[in-house]
Amino acid sequence: MIIGIDIGGTTSKIGVVKDGRVQATLRVPTTGHADEHAFADALTAAVKELAAGQQEAITGIGIGAPNANQYAGIIELAPNLPWKHDVPLASMVERRTGIRTVLGNDANAAALGEWRYGAGQGLHDMLMVTLGTGVGSGFITNGQLVLGSHGNAGEIGHMTIVIDGRECTCGRKGCLEAYVSIRGLRRTYEELDGDPAILEEPGVLCIAKAAQQGDQAALQTFRHAARWLGVGLANAVAVTGPARIVLFGGIARNGELLMAPLREWFQRSLLNIYHGRVDLVASALPDDDAAILGAAALTTL
Amino acid sequence: MIIGIDIGGTTSKIGVVKDGRVQATLRVPTTGHADEHAFADALTAAVKELAAGQQEAITGIGIGAPNANQYAGIIELAPNLPWKHDVPLASMVERRTGIRTVLGNDANAAALGEWRYGAGQGLHDMLMVTLGTGVGSGFITNGQLVLGSHGNAGEIGHMTIVIDGRECTCGRKGCLEAYVSIRGLRRTYEELDGDPAILEEPGVLCIAKAAQQGDQAALQTFRHAARWLGVGLANAVAVTGPARIVLFGGIARNGELLMAPLREWFQRSLLNIYHGRVDLVASALPDDDAAILGAAALTTL
Repeated sequence: MIIGIDIGGTTSKIGVVKDGRVQATLRVPTTGHADEHAFADALTAAVKELAAGQQEAITGIGIGAPNANQYAGIIELAPNLPWKHDVPLASMVERRTGIRTVLGNDANAAALGEWRYGAGQGLHDMLMVTLGTGVGSGFITNGQLVLGSHGNAGEIGHMTIVIDGRECTCGRKGCLEAYVSIRGLRRTYEELDGDPAILEEPGVLCIAKAAQQGDQAALQTFRHAARWLGVGLANAVAVTGPARIVLFGGIARNGELLMAPLREWFQRSLLNIYHGRVDLVASALPDDDAAILGAAALTTL
Repeated sequence: MIIGIDIGGTTSKIGVVKDGRVQATLRVPTTGHADEHAFADALTAAVKELAAGQQEAITGIGIGAPNANQYAGIIELAPNLPWKHDVPLASMVERRTGIRTVLGNDANAAALGEWRYGAGQGLHDMLMVTLGTGVGSGFITNGQLVLGSHGNAGEIGHMTIVIDGRECTCGRKGCLEAYVSIRGLRRTYEELDGDPAILEEPGVLCIAKAAQQGDQAALQTFRHAARWLGVGLANAVAVTGPARIVLFGGIARNGELLMAPLREWFQRSLLNIYHGRVDLVASALPDDDAAILGAAALTTL
């Protein structure tokens, strides 16, 4: 029995995992705490509350967080989290709970979860891409998660897709994330002179709804996103040659609106030796559970 | 004692390797044979000649070739080789010699050679990039060569670096190889209105010599190549997070002409979390030996 914790920008989810299923969950706000120690206290209280309701002992805690360095157990300068310095969250939680705690990058955690429990089961080589506020990824090659020499591999969102292109939140230009994240799609819709009233609603669901009603700029927004993402995925295939790519997150949930043009652009962008050899599928895990399952899977590395 | 064979577009090199050193070599033309069986006969004759001169038995043969699929032991539709169909060279040579034979991609072989015997020794995560007629690569992650689900990972030369960019020999557009191979540099020099007389000599040494004499178009050619390559390498880092990148091949041999602007563009193209964490170095192996050592290292996988 393992605890999986997913640290989000506003809310963190804590869940008990047994046999690849989430048994019970709690939520703790990520923001609004006096400092990171108060946040660790709140996480610990939630872990203890969940553990108290179980018949078996908790044998490990896995935490998935943005900008987490798995080797160091530290969250490094995460732009979307409240703390503007390195936070050694693994040791902070381990000390408070007395339970072995592993911290990992949230996208790597999602990839692990999908690999162990979802659409990647049994594969030696796969790639998981999360499309949302950011664009994250996790690579499995040779049957192992790729962490890289410093624990921060898998940043597909920060591959340069257009040299001297759009400014990215990372401070560089032309990153894939600047084109296919929520912010990226909204910007594309603006650039295509879409209806400003549509964008009064946050997120991308508003653009998806407009597209379904025949709004041309909205339809084009998804087609453009598919093209950039198709190139980015094909570039990632050229490096690691996965058998399958699993897409996860809000943008990927818009069904054929993205997936139909994406399949086309992905095939067109692939080098011929990869044609017909790489599946492109949506996540097989329930949204609410995937991040918790992935975080829990970090303890099994 | 192992035999390493490097299949080149015009010449194939066969060498005996012991203790990480090439002891003796022979050359066989790749072209001009009646068919692939005649070529395999010629390779076998060279292997037997080399083996006859040794005190110890040959325990394995490793063959590095363009477009080789290591899982299948087959050279797949290689555009720069004489055979326009799949050639199962591993089994053809194994049957003729009676010695266990492994076939692998030449860039993967070079990466393995550099990792076992050269600038990559002791690293868990590295990337080797060969710059020449083509642009190849081999990735080591988690202390293992990345082959991918179908044995053809590591095609960094066919990452799209400019969407809708230059035509590539692979039939697609904007590949890194179309910009930073020998052909790519020559085309850049043309596009910069360089002196046509310079290009009467084949290869890139002619452009390098012109640059050293102050030819502005030639200097710009290397600066532009450095920029495209810097972006391509940074994109590869964003996937696998290597500790070191080793550059190999004719273009990388032009010293600071390429390396000085490349270091600058590479650092500018890297996501901040990788800054200062990825070395960029030239190969530590003698040119003539590297491909043979790499091919031999394929037998140790």
